[in-house]
Amino acid sequence: MIRIKNALVMPMTDGIAIEKGEVWTEGDKVAFVGQPDAKKFADTRFEREIDADGGLVMPSFKNAHTHSAMTFLRSYADDLPLQEWLFNKIFPMEAKLTGDHIYWLSKLAILEYLTSGVTASFDMYFEPDAYVKANIESGFRTVLCGSIAGEPSNLDRLDGYMQKFNGISPLISYRLGFHAEYTASYELLEGMAELAKKYRQGVSTHNSETAKEVRECIEKYGKTPTELFDSLGLFEFGGSSFHCVHLSDNDISIFRDRGLYAVTCPGSNSKLASGIAPIVKMHDAGVKLAVGTDGPSSNNCLDMFREMFLMTALQKLKLDDAAACPAQWVLEAATTGSAHAMGLEDCDNLAEGKQADLIIIDLNQPNMQPLNSIANNIVYSGSKQNVMLTMCAGKVLYERGEFNIGTDPREIYAKANEIITSMS
Amino acid sequence: MIRIKNALVMPMTDGIAIEKGEVWTEGDKVAFVGQPDAKKFADTRFEREIDADGGLVMPSFKNAHTHSAMTFLRSYADDLPLQEWLFNKIFPMEAKLTGDHIYWLSKLAILEYLTSGVTASFDMYFEPDAYVKANIESGFRTVLCGSIAGEPSNLDRLDGYMQKFNGISPLISYRLGFHAEYTASYELLEGMAELAKKYRQGVSTHNSETAKEVRECIEKYGKTPTELFDSLGLFEFGGSSFHCVHLSDNDISIFRDRGLYAVTCPGSNSKLASGIAPIVKMHDAGVKLAVGTDGPSSNNCLDMFREMFLMTALQKLKLDDAAACPAQWVLEAATTGSAHAMGLEDCDNLAEGKQADLIIIDLNQPNMQPLNSIANNIVYSGSKQNVMLTMCAGKVLYERGEFNIGTDPREIYAKANEIITSMS
Repeated sequence: MIRIKNALVMPMTDGIAIEKGEVWTEGDKVAFVGQPDAKKFADTRFEREIDADGGLVMPSFKNAHTHSAMTFLRSYADDLPLQEWLFNKIFPMEAKLTGDHIYWLSKLAILEYLTSGVTASFDMYFEPDAYVKANIESGFRTVLCGSIAGEPSNLDRLDGYMQKFNGISPLISYRLGFHAEYTASYELLEGMAELAKKYRQGVSTHNSETAKEVRECIEKYGKTPTELFDSLGLFEFGGSSFHCVHLSDNDISIFRDRGLYAVTCPGSNSKLASGIAPIVKMHDAGVKLAVGTDGPSSNNCLDMFREMFLMTALQKLKLDDAAACPAQWVLEAATTGSAHAMGLEDCDNLAEGKQADLIIIDLNQPNMQPLNSIANNIVYSGSKQNVMLTMCAGKVLYERGEFNIGTDPREIYAKANEIITSMS
Repeated sequence: MIRIKNALVMPMTDGIAIEKGEVWTEGDKVAFVGQPDAKKFADTRFEREIDADGGLVMPSFKNAHTHSAMTFLRSYADDLPLQEWLFNKIFPMEAKLTGDHIYWLSKLAILEYLTSGVTASFDMYFEPDAYVKANIESGFRTVLCGSIAGEPSNLDRLDGYMQKFNGISPLISYRLGFHAEYTASYELLEGMAELAKKYRQGVSTHNSETAKEVRECIEKYGKTPTELFDSLGLFEFGGSSFHCVHLSDNDISIFRDRGLYAVTCPGSNSKLASGIAPIVKMHDAGVKLAVGTDGPSSNNCLDMFREMFLMTALQKLKLDDAAACPAQWVLEAATTGSAHAMGLEDCDNLAEGKQADLIIIDLNQPNMQPLNSIANNIVYSGSKQNVMLTMCAGKVLYERGEFNIGTDPREIYAKANEIITSMS
């Protein structure tokens, strides 16, 4: 059992923070949260005691949309128009990727997630075997998201992945998903609806990221992407949509009625000039919210603190209202909301029996002082620098700048540079 | 002499980075930049050798607009409409501040600047004696900016400060400034123009931060704030304006013609829903750019990395153009541009004889890899976490998480909490 003591604990169960609190973990689970009494200690032997030094223990962040292995294209093609970026720079480079590349590039992303207090990624990419290997070796949790496109012949592959990867490790799950409306045939979408029924599971996809995507979908089908997916029964069991920048009022109603998660990616949406998602409108309509970084070639970093600030700051600008999108919404979306959007029901908060996916935020840092509001400090002033420790499934993977994922970070950096150099 | 070795050096003099480079400092100055040969070493004895471990040595960031002592109001009043925030929350609390408070609260800000690689602030606040004391003790550089408002009777005080604080320490300077058009009488503005002539110096002020401010100025004077200031001769010797969110084309022409610096504060402007400054338009018109954080009650943090990302990301959103405002503009504005806007001509880049105000960025971090583009990595992916060392005037004030400002950070945190608690 691991004991984290001398902490301010924010379990995210009821909005209350526990002063002078403790969190104990046993194996991969949370064993205790609160202020223990003598009786509680009597039978307990700890393999390790971690002094949080007054720091904040809270559920880790979950990254509800990413393409982790795109780390090799960080800062490779910035400040370009979207189409030129995608078709002339990104796609040709991705075509050169091998499984071995993806193994190393995923590890680079995992390092970065850990520095930002992220313990799980909802990851849409190819070569899942390499990706799964990198994650299991690192002790990092991932939910792979189906990424198929094109013709229905690809549905069998997705079905195979669902059976192959679910159950392969407690850290790994695979969920139904496809790339996007604009890369899918109508028949593929019909087939996705069949798979949703077969697995009784929600479906995830890129949805309404750009105005162009929505306009062209309406031209083709007379429906928005959301309306099209819903009409095909794709959302019968819920699911999640990535980006959700250009949603109509009717789309938002569908999200609410189907219990869909809107996964906002404000860093990517601003860097690629896609627009600002209607977060406040969605929230007020009762749509469930989650947060993702998107991939590191469009963002360019995998930093949940940046996403949190942008999530609220861009709403304030969009609505000309400094009161828009308060910090508490953001914090819930980045922890509980994202966990649920990924199907990680056991990783959403800190309570006995939940997965021990947690972080310690160092409050003895200038940007966390004074302590007028912990939640606001994290959302408006927080930085990766404040992450003192990141624990996934009960294992400390990052602590005070040191990584514990079984691979020397410098080997990973060297490999990442080798990969991009070999392609250029 | 201090030797920084094993570095990638980006002097910001000509856009070239020096691989396997070194920077030597002697006292408060840069003594050498480049790849030294054996002859260079012959006569040199080093008091300290710093191994940059392959990290990037570059000029430090300069924060060209802030109100440092407002740290006590961090996260005190967020998510409120601007008027309610300012008049019901901020002003009543500021009225309670003493010089001793400002001394401690300034030190808190200095700690935070150092974590973000900032070595100088252009600071507009009251109680300058307390502020100057905190800065000199800490070894931090500051340019105090006149903050007078109201009637011309306050001009004498400003004149006195100019004489008192310029020359008091190599770390301190004082520049002509006033709070804003909307808090100044016409006669005060006329008097400011006289002071500009007397000192042959530019004038700095808040300018066109909100649409309301500009609208009301036009109603009152038939001119925008920029036009009004210019008509009074306030810009005869240049100067700088903070925020510059709502500038007309004619305002931008005046900025260009007068050589004024536009100091953008995108974090504050988004959090307070003030709008997005026309950075690209200003740049293309030839206006000089600088970057500031604004005060920590409106931002809420003092993080130049956040400001840099926002500076470009918001332009991309504003102009619907992913190519807008490339990283190089941002990096130049946050280093050289800000230094010049503050009158720190000797702190702008790394060359022999310049002030040794520099940082080391740790490149052995996941968010800095691979090294496709150093500049883009810093602007799009950089974080305070990457700041390995911050040196001001040749003295290391921050290194690998440890502060060296002569005061225990925990004492500063405790004081900041005491101050806000005593006021509540």
